[in-house]
Amino acid sequence: MNVYTPPLDEIRFLLETFDYPGQIASIERFQEFDLETSMGLLEAYSKFCVEILLPLNRVGDAQGVRYDPETHEVRMPDGFREAYTEFCSNGFGGLSFDPAHGGLGAPHCVSTLALEVLVSSNKSFSMCTGLTAGLIDALEAHGSAEQQAELLPKLISGEWAGTMCLTEPQCGTDLGLLTTRAVPSGDHHELTGTKVWITFGEHDLAENIVHLVLARLPDAPAGIKGISTFVVPKFLDDGTRNAVFCGSTDHKMGIHASPTCVINLEGAKGWLVGEPHRGMRSMFTMMNAARLNVGIEGVALGDAAYQAALAFAKDRRQSRSLDPAKVDREHGADNILVHPDVRRMLLEVKATTEGLRGLVAWISMSYDQMHHSADEATRQRASDLVALLTPIIKSYGSERGFDNVSTAMQVMGGAGYTRDWPVEQYLRDLRIAMIYEGTNHIQALDLVGRKLMMHGGRLLGTFSAEIGRLLASCASDPRMAEFAGPLEAEAERLQATTLALGAAASRDPEVIGAVASNYLNQFALVTLGYVWVRQVRAVIERDDADPLKRSKLQTARYFFELILPEAELLAKKVAVGKAPMTEVDTSLL
Amino acid sequence: MNVYTPPLDEIRFLLETFDYPGQIASIERFQEFDLETSMGLLEAYSKFCVEILLPLNRVGDAQGVRYDPETHEVRMPDGFREAYTEFCSNGFGGLSFDPAHGGLGAPHCVSTLALEVLVSSNKSFSMCTGLTAGLIDALEAHGSAEQQAELLPKLISGEWAGTMCLTEPQCGTDLGLLTTRAVPSGDHHELTGTKVWITFGEHDLAENIVHLVLARLPDAPAGIKGISTFVVPKFLDDGTRNAVFCGSTDHKMGIHASPTCVINLEGAKGWLVGEPHRGMRSMFTMMNAARLNVGIEGVALGDAAYQAALAFAKDRRQSRSLDPAKVDREHGADNILVHPDVRRMLLEVKATTEGLRGLVAWISMSYDQMHHSADEATRQRASDLVALLTPIIKSYGSERGFDNVSTAMQVMGGAGYTRDWPVEQYLRDLRIAMIYEGTNHIQALDLVGRKLMMHGGRLLGTFSAEIGRLLASCASDPRMAEFAGPLEAEAERLQATTLALGAAASRDPEVIGAVASNYLNQFALVTLGYVWVRQVRAVIERDDADPLKRSKLQTARYFFELILPEAELLAKKVAVGKAPMTEVDTSLL
Repeated sequence: MNVYTPPLDEIRFLLETFDYPGQIASIERFQEFDLETSMGLLEAYSKFCVEILLPLNRVGDAQGVRYDPETHEVRMPDGFREAYTEFCSNGFGGLSFDPAHGGLGAPHCVSTLALEVLVSSNKSFSMCTGLTAGLIDALEAHGSAEQQAELLPKLISGEWAGTMCLTEPQCGTDLGLLTTRAVPSGDHHELTGTKVWITFGEHDLAENIVHLVLARLPDAPAGIKGISTFVVPKFLDDGTRNAVFCGSTDHKMGIHASPTCVINLEGAKGWLVGEPHRGMRSMFTMMNAARLNVGIEGVALGDAAYQAALAFAKDRRQSRSLDPAKVDREHGADNILVHPDVRRMLLEVKATTEGLRGLVAWISMSYDQMHHSADEATRQRASDLVALLTPIIKSYGSERGFDNVSTAMQVMGGAGYTRDWPVEQYLRDLRIAMIYEGTNHIQALDLVGRKLMMHGGRLLGTFSAEIGRLLASCASDPRMAEFAGPLEAEAERLQATTLALGAAASRDPEVIGAVASNYLNQFALVTLGYVWVRQVRAVIERDDADPLKRSKLQTARYFFELILPEAELLAKKVAVGKAPMTEVDTSLL
Repeated sequence: MNVYTPPLDEIRFLLETFDYPGQIASIERFQEFDLETSMGLLEAYSKFCVEILLPLNRVGDAQGVRYDPETHEVRMPDGFREAYTEFCSNGFGGLSFDPAHGGLGAPHCVSTLALEVLVSSNKSFSMCTGLTAGLIDALEAHGSAEQQAELLPKLISGEWAGTMCLTEPQCGTDLGLLTTRAVPSGDHHELTGTKVWITFGEHDLAENIVHLVLARLPDAPAGIKGISTFVVPKFLDDGTRNAVFCGSTDHKMGIHASPTCVINLEGAKGWLVGEPHRGMRSMFTMMNAARLNVGIEGVALGDAAYQAALAFAKDRRQSRSLDPAKVDREHGADNILVHPDVRRMLLEVKATTEGLRGLVAWISMSYDQMHHSADEATRQRASDLVALLTPIIKSYGSERGFDNVSTAMQVMGGAGYTRDWPVEQYLRDLRIAMIYEGTNHIQALDLVGRKLMMHGGRLLGTFSAEIGRLLASCASDPRMAEFAGPLEAEAERLQATTLALGAAASRDPEVIGAVASNYLNQFALVTLGYVWVRQVRAVIERDDADPLKRSKLQTARYFFELILPEAELLAKKVAVGKAPMTEVDTSLL
């Protein structure tokens, strides 16, 4: 039973809360995209997702992809090819890309919020267009004018699809170990090596597939400073097949309609993108957007699971309220929404999902400002926030999202465990989000080991200033105290944790590895606290009877009373330091 | 890749720690089962599990059960029938049942610890023998001498299998709503109704299936006080087919080789077990053992996943240690066990799994004492502990076990998400444990709403006395302080939480529903703290170089520094009370 409805009202509220008209629509590049236009685009996009892609989600899960070892080709589940063609013909693959190359030119925040609906409807499908979008980002940033002119229009239109070929059997997290070689040969290079975990590395949705491949030139230094990037098309300009083949597809717990491929490069022709040995730059360009998108997956499936659980709960009667006044004498049992624990579970999911979605809205708007604001200070502030909070969105979004799907299943009892509802698929599909695009611990190391130190700590200063400004704007309003007070306390605690961690890490860097995961989660909770105070402030002037105000207040209360306190526990865990992990004899594990 | 090894050394250690020779083997009924004999039985049982059942685990998952709507029969995956026959011919189905009916007469703690190995090897298979065992328990407690003589030998030998037919479409948690009717007819009753979620309700492993069915007699009062229990065999004495048919099997996220059936009773012949309208008693007899067993599922699959993750980690090199002294210059990357976060994840799983297994050992030994000790005070103390801690084992074991499997998967990165390893199956198979045999929130209500109040709070007093005795025995040993100190503090906090909750609940019972789940988890952490102090005390006199001592100390340190502090957060959540849940307009969810 599929009950998913795209959260368009909530998206509109968030765009207003984070001042879309003033912050984004006022940027010259986006002058055609006022709030109504963007919402119109999102509505059309959402309609397509729900009508065409949502019904294919179960089909894709049940059929999976089919690999033919004779032809090295992958056949997608029934209906995916037609849906892909229609998706592209609507221009949905190019929502926020440059109109110069055939994109619609909408703000990035619009395509990012659209992505949530796409993932809720069909996560496997979203990964094809997502990888292509990553390749487009990399080519826009690092490709030559010729490469851009040749490739971007076909990728943006969806005629061609993209991949990201990074990992190899011996290197996942640690790309410095990669061994794929690229040997110069006339105007091109010949690439040889084996890539693994390649999402949509082979499929029959598009006419051609362009692989972005990390490899080493013959004169490359060892490690990650010797990696270059190449584009390697499946079919060459003259229509001949390039020597890049899918060797097999993985059998996975979920995302069955997303082919995860071994890709063998057998002297395949490739063309260098950007400068030699600087391949990690284009990789990171792809990665940053990809990481934001992974966080969204947690929001998307957390919300879809919530909607299923709520629909189930509204329909289910079981047991009696412990409060005699709430007993429904007309029925043999009370609706389960009367039970506080059912509400607790639903509010856990709702409070974190709405907090994370707000965070995504804020940071994706910052992404637009970072690239396109006319004001340098705005660009810098936005860039700081994007860099600092992207690992948090990726990690906390995927982790809490997974917990949320599981919690939603719990509301449904045995029904949620069966395929009568889509929640069990959501749980299977979402588990990978904690792993791919850099495991969640890699995000934590990025946060603590890189982002906190960057520009002498400026990124954290920018974030703290945002919190300070928000708290100042609430200070004179006693109605805000129950929300702003806990945020202030936890922001101060985070500051103290950060200082102590900085001091400990400067004496002993290994501390970072030991505590970074817990630190990231502490940071994430404070960030959600910020987002919730902004949401409450945005409704506080409304009439007390306004449903949105009442809804936001009751959900915010749950967040501040029962979720934000987790930050204190995490701070304590960080303060423990490294000993319980490092003073361990691993032969005894 | 399957690397599972049964934890026999650990089981021996736990049996010694909780004084198996003095507490169990000294009971007259168990005189033949000294520690070596019991360990010999466990070794033979484990060998069978690993050699025969483990290889079938993946087969069962991939094939699933096959339902034939023409014959209403269910065919089990390849090899299951042969394995079942061999399992039974070894007497493994009757490990701890009465020799008078063909059982081996071993202590319940032995069959309980054996169950862990069975579940680690093949969870689906374990559910068939588990349900049969539940029926045997119910008949031993409530069946007539005639019923016992007729049914028990065949059930204990495994010729016949059992089920437990409780739930109906309109009633899962709330059995008072059930409507299946039993009409007297000569020496028997005719039962009509529809049962759902019936585990192993139909299969081809055994010659006959005996259903234990809850139903209402014509003169039954409404609610749970009008429920009677009946045995309803699939085949009658004369070999004719009884009118009880499988209507369909559910399609589930996991346990694909465990048929979950709709069972239609179409005037089926049944015989009353025990007194009319007192059926909930036999139901609870089955339920209590079943709940302990569900907790074990979390231990079993948490450990199996841990073993897979550890094997993967030992073999994997990736990135460099942040401590230059630990860099392995002979390789291009360090073994991932050097990274503190990998250790953190492994220790999370190890510390909770070993704590829960110890708890299971303790409570299953108490189960034997409760039934068979010659000393009345011992029986009462054991009975108190079993009643109080069974809901904790069921709920915390399944919840933490699920988290543990997910954490183990995280250690393995993408590999853990694929079917190259069994961990993704463990995650799917284990998720149901939080739901069935009473959802985890039902366990929490049982703990707070029933067990804490029982006999004027005597159960909690018994548990507190155990903690007090343990702490007293550690008081003079400074080596125990780092473990006993935190246990004492958290036990005191739990006492305070319990008192405050009792006071709040006496004014307003709805508070119980709001906070019980968090309270149960707080209680569980204190319980694991108790078990860890016992384990440490059991090794503290050993030589410092003893591997078991070193292993237990380093794991215990992780537990007390990084896991037990979660109890404080939970206490804070309990103290919040009900308002964030009850002062909510559910139409706004």
